[in-house]
Amino acid sequence: MGESKKLKAGVIRNDRHMADGRTIRYYDTAGQARNVEDARPQEEQPGIGELRLDPLVNEWVVMAAHRQGRIFLPPKELCPLCPTNGELLTEIPESDFEVVVFDNRSPSLRPPAGDWALPDMVGPDTDLGTAAGKCEVICFTAEHGKSFKDLTPQRARTLLEAWIDRTSELSQESFIQHIAPFENRGEEIGVTLSHPHGQIYAYSYIPPRVEKMLAAAKKYKEQTGKVLFDEIVAREIRDNERIVARNDRWIAFVPYAARYPFEIHIAPLNPVADLTGLTDADRDAFPEIALEVTRRLDGVFGIEMAYIAAWHQAPVQVGRDVMRLHWQITSVRRAPGKLKYLAGSESAMGAFIMDMRPEQSAAQLREVVL
Amino acid sequence: MGESKKLKAGVIRNDRHMADGRTIRYYDTAGQARNVEDARPQEEQPGIGELRLDPLVNEWVVMAAHRQGRIFLPPKELCPLCPTNGELLTEIPESDFEVVVFDNRSPSLRPPAGDWALPDMVGPDTDLGTAAGKCEVICFTAEHGKSFKDLTPQRARTLLEAWIDRTSELSQESFIQHIAPFENRGEEIGVTLSHPHGQIYAYSYIPPRVEKMLAAAKKYKEQTGKVLFDEIVAREIRDNERIVARNDRWIAFVPYAARYPFEIHIAPLNPVADLTGLTDADRDAFPEIALEVTRRLDGVFGIEMAYIAAWHQAPVQVGRDVMRLHWQITSVRRAPGKLKYLAGSESAMGAFIMDMRPEQSAAQLREVVL
Repeated sequence: MGESKKLKAGVIRNDRHMADGRTIRYYDTAGQARNVEDARPQEEQPGIGELRLDPLVNEWVVMAAHRQGRIFLPPKELCPLCPTNGELLTEIPESDFEVVVFDNRSPSLRPPAGDWALPDMVGPDTDLGTAAGKCEVICFTAEHGKSFKDLTPQRARTLLEAWIDRTSELSQESFIQHIAPFENRGEEIGVTLSHPHGQIYAYSYIPPRVEKMLAAAKKYKEQTGKVLFDEIVAREIRDNERIVARNDRWIAFVPYAARYPFEIHIAPLNPVADLTGLTDADRDAFPEIALEVTRRLDGVFGIEMAYIAAWHQAPVQVGRDVMRLHWQITSVRRAPGKLKYLAGSESAMGAFIMDMRPEQSAAQLREVVL
Repeated sequence: MGESKKLKAGVIRNDRHMADGRTIRYYDTAGQARNVEDARPQEEQPGIGELRLDPLVNEWVVMAAHRQGRIFLPPKELCPLCPTNGELLTEIPESDFEVVVFDNRSPSLRPPAGDWALPDMVGPDTDLGTAAGKCEVICFTAEHGKSFKDLTPQRARTLLEAWIDRTSELSQESFIQHIAPFENRGEEIGVTLSHPHGQIYAYSYIPPRVEKMLAAAKKYKEQTGKVLFDEIVAREIRDNERIVARNDRWIAFVPYAARYPFEIHIAPLNPVADLTGLTDADRDAFPEIALEVTRRLDGVFGIEMAYIAAWHQAPVQVGRDVMRLHWQITSVRRAPGKLKYLAGSESAMGAFIMDMRPEQSAAQLREVVL
């Protein structure tokens, strides 16, 4: 620890140990020293959860009962994601930061001790597995009341560099099969810490929705010889009416079969399998479109929109020729006083009902004056 | 119309036209005449929605923009699901009812005009389809403030007979592939009418979650020669610790890999493909366990629990040898002031994280004193 790593766009990464053995990684552009020790008393790390097979649909479910008691919407004075200033010793020992990534204190998934292999999936007698994987928290502003959309382009560029770096490093772990950086925003969708932050889930299995994307992409490749996502983007460009924003390197659109009232997919025009494949030009052009899209989203109703923003990338070891990096932002807000809920049809049957035409929500997003 | 049909358990069904051409079916046990006309002015039926293919995962999404303006949490005096008493002409012309099923006024799915076939699913250029299917509303008590759990055993038996009758009749329609009776309860999950009621969705496609169950069941049959759900029930009986209630004909358990804080599956011990297969003895024994389980659920925290209760049955035309009828009740309530939300991991990746051990929630349900 204590060593520095030089990334692109002038970003330097410095690692430090936390009091309980976790690691915090500072991603900085101003050459700051990052020497402040975590002065909190040592604390035991929580136990590891279980992976259980839901045999009805052949999907893994993570049992993480140790998370039930986690901190729930603390007031600003007790925010564990603010930098440490004053008496409260937070997760970030330094008095300021640009972007930090640290191991989650109450992780759903944890690195396994020793050798580990996923049990075969076969039915109701499938053996237990420990919930292997890794969960990290990513903070991208020291300002408690700000949002992703308020970042400077430089800060958004540093955040992208951190996502790329984490994807690259976590991909080296033999027990990791899929890496998903995402941000949950808004109490409406269950955020338990209001300080703006994202998370990185590194799964030891291919998550069910990714598994389904992989199956569709493979089938399409077999039937047509083409890459499904590339054809999806080509169709959106052809149709044009659902495009929300674009620049030389990226495009943002409401997908033809959007399932949330506001749903935007953002993809690089030169397709890549995952974040590490983005060229310098792609990386440099990302902040502009990312900030534009998130500002448009908050502009629709003039209120902060609850959303989930998730990077979809190819799994670490399979499907890298048919899966494509893209960023999906979905919001359940369908009107200022109304949310879309996943009830009987969506939740029990998996059959989504959309109350708005995607063309209408794309138009509303485009009409926002920035 | 105006004709009567005799069902089991002394239930008589009488059908009437509604003013706008929809049908209302009264299911009664006391030989009531059902002659009151719907005196509301005629009204045009809303347009039919679209089925769009989400090519990323090869799933149909229903576009039903005409539902966006539907009535939202009206006060009791304006409840459209109360019987008609006084000036407000509701959906139910009679001044009282036991169980009624009527065509949904703002349906997501509607019977198609003329011949109809589902387009093949292949990718981003899949042709449009109209959102064929049928949506019905089922009211099972005239008392606005009551719940399913407050029903008499006889009323629950009549409700079951109505579910069976609708499954039987809807199964005859050539454009119907799957029938799902369900109840959404609680504003926490987006219920827009507080009068207790259920819905029946009859889909013209196999819903994604059912498709996944079917694939798992087929694979298991191929690999073992056994029926997956039967083995799941056998395992729950063997493990014993997650059983919540049972009688001679039914069993209720929290499944081994539950994905919601409170989740109960209720299944007949003599397995059948769908509701129509239940024997008289199964039908007569259902009210007892159904009422016990829903009362236990409300007893856990002493508050009305938001839930989704959905019948899973075999699709109409396929998988009838490997799929089994059961009733799934799921609640997102994890503590009196806390809900489980589907955020980044669940929603974007499909990877569920459970905050409670299923054994713990089964124990809490068993410990409720009724």
